[in-house]
Amino acid sequence: MNWVLAERIIRAALDEDLGYGDITTELTPGRDKIVTATFIVKQDGVLCGGPVAERCFTLIEPAAEVSFSIAEGDEIKAGTALGKVRAKALTILSAERVALNFLQRMSGIATVARRLARQAGPNSTIVVETRKTTPGLRLFEKHAVRVGGGYNHRMGLDGAVMLKDNHFALAGGDPAELVRAVRDRVSHTMKVIAEAGRPEMVEPLTAAGADVVLLDNFTPEQVRRAVEQIAGRALIEVSGGITEENFAKYLVPGVEAISMGALTHSVKALDISLELGL
Amino acid sequence: MNWVLAERIIRAALDEDLGYGDITTELTPGRDKIVTATFIVKQDGVLCGGPVAERCFTLIEPAAEVSFSIAEGDEIKAGTALGKVRAKALTILSAERVALNFLQRMSGIATVARRLARQAGPNSTIVVETRKTTPGLRLFEKHAVRVGGGYNHRMGLDGAVMLKDNHFALAGGDPAELVRAVRDRVSHTMKVIAEAGRPEMVEPLTAAGADVVLLDNFTPEQVRRAVEQIAGRALIEVSGGITEENFAKYLVPGVEAISMGALTHSVKALDISLELGL
Amino acid sequence: MNWVLAERIIRAALDEDLGYGDITTELTPGRDKIVTATFIVKQDGVLCGGPVAERCFTLIEPAAEVSFSIAEGDEIKAGTALGKVRAKALTILSAERVALNFLQRMSGIATVARRLARQAGPNSTIVVETRKTTPGLRLFEKHAVRVGGGYNHRMGLDGAVMLKDNHFALAGGDPAELVRAVRDRVSHTMKVIAEAGRPEMVEPLTAAGADVVLLDNFTPEQVRRAVEQIAGRALIEVSGGITEENFAKYLVPGVEAISMGALTHSVKALDISLELGL
Amino acid sequence: MNWVLAERIIRAALDEDLGYGDITTELTPGRDKIVTATFIVKQDGVLCGGPVAERCFTLIEPAAEVSFSIAEGDEIKAGTALGKVRAKALTILSAERVALNFLQRMSGIATVARRLARQAGPNSTIVVETRKTTPGLRLFEKHAVRVGGGYNHRMGLDGAVMLKDNHFALAGGDPAELVRAVRDRVSHTMKVIAEAGRPEMVEPLTAAGADVVLLDNFTPEQVRRAVEQIAGRALIEVSGGITEENFAKYLVPGVEAISMGALTHSVKALDISLELGL
Amino acid sequence: MNWVLAERIIRAALDEDLGYGDITTELTPGRDKIVTATFIVKQDGVLCGGPVAERCFTLIEPAAEVSFSIAEGDEIKAGTALGKVRAKALTILSAERVALNFLQRMSGIATVARRLARQAGPNSTIVVETRKTTPGLRLFEKHAVRVGGGYNHRMGLDGAVMLKDNHFALAGGDPAELVRAVRDRVSHTMKVIAEAGRPEMVEPLTAAGADVVLLDNFTPEQVRRAVEQIAGRALIEVSGGITEENFAKYLVPGVEAISMGALTHSVKALDISLELGL
Amino acid sequence: MNWVLAERIIRAALDEDLGYGDITTELTPGRDKIVTATFIVKQDGVLCGGPVAERCFTLIEPAAEVSFSIAEGDEIKAGTALGKVRAKALTILSAERVALNFLQRMSGIATVARRLARQAGPNSTIVVETRKTTPGLRLFEKHAVRVGGGYNHRMGLDGAVMLKDNHFALAGGDPAELVRAVRDRVSHTMKVIAEAGRPEMVEPLTAAGADVVLLDNFTPEQVRRAVEQIAGRALIEVSGGITEENFAKYLVPGVEAISMGALTHSVKALDISLELGL
Repeated sequence: MNWVLAERIIRAALDEDLGYGDITTELTPGRDKIVTATFIVKQDGVLCGGPVAERCFTLIEPAAEVSFSIAEGDEIKAGTALGKVRAKALTILSAERVALNFLQRMSGIATVARRLARQAGPNSTIVVETRKTTPGLRLFEKHAVRVGGGYNHRMGLDGAVMLKDNHFALAGGDPAELVRAVRDRVSHTMKVIAEAGRPEMVEPLTAAGADVVLLDNFTPEQVRRAVEQIAGRALIEVSGGITEENFAKYLVPGVEAISMGALTHSVKALDISLELGL
Repeated sequence: MNWVLAERIIRAALDEDLGYGDITTELTPGRDKIVTATFIVKQDGVLCGGPVAERCFTLIEPAAEVSFSIAEGDEIKAGTALGKVRAKALTILSAERVALNFLQRMSGIATVARRLARQAGPNSTIVVETRKTTPGLRLFEKHAVRVGGGYNHRMGLDGAVMLKDNHFALAGGDPAELVRAVRDRVSHTMKVIAEAGRPEMVEPLTAAGADVVLLDNFTPEQVRRAVEQIAGRALIEVSGGITEENFAKYLVPGVEAISMGALTHSVKALDISLELGL
Repeated sequence: MNWVLAERIIRAALDEDLGYGDITTELTPGRDKIVTATFIVKQDGVLCGGPVAERCFTLIEPAAEVSFSIAEGDEIKAGTALGKVRAKALTILSAERVALNFLQRMSGIATVARRLARQAGPNSTIVVETRKTTPGLRLFEKHAVRVGGGYNHRMGLDGAVMLKDNHFALAGGDPAELVRAVRDRVSHTMKVIAEAGRPEMVEPLTAAGADVVLLDNFTPEQVRRAVEQIAGRALIEVSGGITEENFAKYLVPGVEAISMGALTHSVKALDISLELGL
Repeated sequence: MNWVLAERIIRAALDEDLGYGDITTELTPGRDKIVTATFIVKQDGVLCGGPVAERCFTLIEPAAEVSFSIAEGDEIKAGTALGKVRAKALTILSAERVALNFLQRMSGIATVARRLARQAGPNSTIVVETRKTTPGLRLFEKHAVRVGGGYNHRMGLDGAVMLKDNHFALAGGDPAELVRAVRDRVSHTMKVIAEAGRPEMVEPLTAAGADVVLLDNFTPEQVRRAVEQIAGRALIEVSGGITEENFAKYLVPGVEAISMGALTHSVKALDISLELGL
Repeated sequence: MNWVLAERIIRAALDEDLGYGDITTELTPGRDKIVTATFIVKQDGVLCGGPVAERCFTLIEPAAEVSFSIAEGDEIKAGTALGKVRAKALTILSAERVALNFLQRMSGIATVARRLARQAGPNSTIVVETRKTTPGLRLFEKHAVRVGGGYNHRMGLDGAVMLKDNHFALAGGDPAELVRAVRDRVSHTMKVIAEAGRPEMVEPLTAAGADVVLLDNFTPEQVRRAVEQIAGRALIEVSGGITEENFAKYLVPGVEAISMGALTHSVKALDISLELGL
Repeated sequence: MNWVLAERIIRAALDEDLGYGDITTELTPGRDKIVTATFIVKQDGVLCGGPVAERCFTLIEPAAEVSFSIAEGDEIKAGTALGKVRAKALTILSAERVALNFLQRMSGIATVARRLARQAGPNSTIVVETRKTTPGLRLFEKHAVRVGGGYNHRMGLDGAVMLKDNHFALAGGDPAELVRAVRDRVSHTMKVIAEAGRPEMVEPLTAAGADVVLLDNFTPEQVRRAVEQIAGRALIEVSGGITEENFAKYLVPGVEAISMGALTHSVKALDISLELGL
């Protein structure tokens, strides 16, 4: 985790919610009392984002004490107490919503990633998210995928070469040629991923030396045939319209990775609350 | 829309995705060609976020031309072309993902808001979101709620006084007394909302002069009784566990507003793509 | 107080004054000695801004100890010691000017607000500032008004609807119609203020359902008549050319608020110095 | 003018005022009409800040046209039209307050600086501000002093060496020795100013080679004697408790500069309005 | 090139140099004349940074016209005119130093990269920089390496896994085991580089499945032996103490990449000036 | 040192290098162990940048302990241990490169400055850098010059008036006239430097009252003659094509300062490493 960046994101979120300050609590007698609040989860899931939630409080009151009794990535049952915050009531009530927004979203992502990773089983196909992350929160969402048991696709447009239909159309001519040309211009530290939009493209892209051949919108049967055809010459990624429902069908042996936009772009927040003990 | 803030959010999102740049397209012949791409929606919904998507392209290439043929807030059918971008291929491919992330998320929110607003009907109960927005994107998400036909709750902690169970517990003593004390300390430009956690609180909070009495986790039947009891002395907001499924049951005449966290905290992105004409 | 924002403002102010650093003190032997300095007020007034001044020192030297013996909002007599700073001489001399700039300005505003609040008396008309605050310092200036005993008008353009002559002219037609149309488009958390530029507008704006009718540039006599006319149907705010001199004349029973740009736009800094004990 | 910095300050000010946007005007029919508004000054003074006001509008709507018919630094009579803005009504009403806040403050400072500069006359003593500027606005306030006819003292703590009583006390020993030691450690591009807190210090500071001897809190008579004593060996600055009222008494021939905190720390905004032609 | 980031870096550089503005030119008659200046190179080299230099002027004066007659990456002879700027004299003189600082540094890096790339010859060993770039300028320095004909190593700590002696020591046990464990935890888009600090490590790291084996501080003879031993099972990178002088000795067939910190950490700026035609 | 600015630069550098985090170390067992690492210098030189390197670690892990046993500005021999860091292994490996980049660059500059300052000897000509600093790092580079024993030229374009050939050409007419005109427009706190591009300009610039006459591209013999001619009426700065090799020839008695771009624009980093004790 890059905490320099993480702090910047958290500060922006607090600032967005506070505006001129939590006027309600500032007007409430008792606001300066030191109190304790408990995070309680209302649904089964996977905990993720504890250290991020912690910073929401300590950035406002450095002396705030936040401790989670459940470890990041642990599975949690509805009704469980996850951890505690001890701070001024004003601090807790001011930062509560932002802390929960992060915690619920990150835990929601980790929960789905865990379900999929479990389905995939160990030592086999990995689950990865796509670049369909929430603008501004990619750091946290990619982290949540890892905590859940998933893996990360490239971090951004500069993390790997990824040639898709648009690139092939733009370059014109033979897609395999573009793969070869691009390979020559990237260094030994960078992977080249080439997207096969249809079965006929699999062989030429593989032969051209792509590190990864991405099978886009293939049926499970087409995937199976591509695995045989590639025969270990390239890693295989499968993507396109995969959901929790049809995921299992794509768990074809020989597939290295399944990438799913749904992991981050339509995440359901895990219901967690912060109960103030007064 | 505060475009100074909007631009800052968009720049951060582009920067997050670009890193050192779109290395794939930079290596693709034809990257400097001026091309046209078309936004196509794949699901029925409501369009929202066109001007935000537009900035994603013009911030990278000021000469990029972006035009939407469908107006913000219009309902769109699966398969419809929404608008066009004319710019360098490199610009379009570099900004595409970020532009779509905003457009899909905002249209997704507007779509749900529209469904609910329609159900509520004109001149009656309004639908509002809560502070459970995505950290850093509240500006865009609140906007999408309005475009969809919903209304906005307070913008942040400084937008209205909102006394909840925690404030009453913190202050100790009689909730009605806190309402009265706080009323005295806020100016004529600010509303005071008081949350009734159970039916017995409705009368004292109303009598104490709350502008809005928020009925939290009430059954529809309890809501009905509260409406009678309040009898126009305060505006009535209903919240707590309301979903698209049970929403209709809370459309009790006399209820001014129904607030739903689900409008923004678990939004499903509307599927929109950008097809490059080459 | 939103301390995330407050810190950003304070850092910018320190950075502006320091440039490449306090070259004078850096060249002075003894700069690393731990010394004590005392805030002394030179005029009668109201103290405001202590915690802001404190951050000026601790942001430069986290170990700096700053303590005020006088509470925020207390009245102070010329010659009184207000508090102490114990830190490296370099820290004190580097941050002194910025700390005093904030303290003097905030105390200056609080002092005027107190005089006016006292004149208005308890449980009656409140004094509020306008949006004529110093660009970049609104957070601190609005806070100072409250500390002085005043109240805050809307925080910014998004804090309340405020229909003025320009809006009525822009919309054309009947002002009352605009009030009604706008009321329908804002939620239950937001007040609608309508400005009456002349006595004839009072009745239609009130009847149209404005929460607040603002009497702009009315004579005290006109105010009195408007109070009778409105008869409790809307809150009444008075503004326009009100100064400390003519303020008392506008203290008409039934007026909820008097707003004065002069509270913040032409503030006289309270003279406070920081005396180094060496 | 450093426009990179100026833009950052202006953006922050707009953002502060807009929050989620100008909700009032956004709800007003006609908001997208292109209209013209005119800056009118209500008091006599000196115009300053036109280009800053201009950016307030063009940062929101790049196509906005702003033109001033009066030049920066020209004297303006109450009632004069200063210039025009042609833009969308929404743009004008959204940026109006911020633009006026800058324009009024800068013109207010320039007006006082002009009065003092005129009193001082040509080719003689100059008037300079101090570091008692508004935190965050020093760039604009120093500019306004120059436009008014004043001069700028050092820009910040890094702009010149300025040894005051605290530095002498801190170093211990002979002030003249500190002046000599510091002279040796600063380069040929930097001036060394030494503050004489009482008449006896004038000779040793001068003899030690200070470029400027600052006479702090001297009576006019003491200033006169110091001028004779220094006899051209150093430049002479006078400061401390000088106001518009007693300013003339300090216009002693041989005094190079009079510095006055009042120029910027208690400035009275010049009354300027923006009248919308509808 | 990520221009959102590039602009932020350029703005910071201009702001750093301008402070309160170019006071010298602001005081010079003729400052508002539109003039033309010509970039002239004083040494042989490779041009890099033209578009960056261009932004230095257009960020200050959007209407400034900057055109380079020599293309990025072209070799330039001492005395050649590279391009022209047409703008206000004030703009040119204000931005000149910053523009040249970027242009000279980027061209200096490209020049060295070109010399090395030429020595390496086509289709063989590539030259890459390391993370020893100038803090804050990595975007531009990596770009200059590419423009010169070099290639980029990973962009930052998140761009590839790179296991070095410290990681092996930290993990304890067998380095090959760490390589295997880490391979399992990174996705198919990420390369795993393992550093062999001595010849005995080459075989186990290769056998463990490193994508790249980095030979650190090997003699050319040791490199030759490692190439034979690895026999195509992994890509080979050579680093450690390689300079322009001994570079040729490391051009062993089979070596994929040679990485050199000297490319960026001790770069000699190429001498380029901007001559004003007056 | 302005630590508010310094922290901003350091944060940006850490953020640039970390991206999504140090993925290598995050995957290495033992990453959370508290370990000690030692800074070792590999070449003779002057230490500079210790406090900057320290912040690189403490900004990531506030509890990190960093201590230098060698003082800033001390001369260091190849092989010497300079100081220690005690922190989590993850912290040390994440921040190491950035810390060393700063330390090596600052020590490299201080080392050259020391060599030149020593050659110049005490109480005589000073060595100063120019504005050819690394964009974004001027604060640290100017500091390193001072720590090495050099002096600082003006900090930026606002630090002193500096009239060069371009200004004279722009103004047209007599250079001496421009010097006189500008003197009248700058305050007593600001120096006026005038550049003599050829011997004939020395007398008129001196007579016009320049505080400093800068002899640009003069031969040592021409410098000698100019010293005689100026005869103490102005300070003398020499610049233009001066390198460590020909520096001694310009040490003409009567020359106040020699400015050298090479001090900062082509600096060779001092080789320092951080060795982890495991």
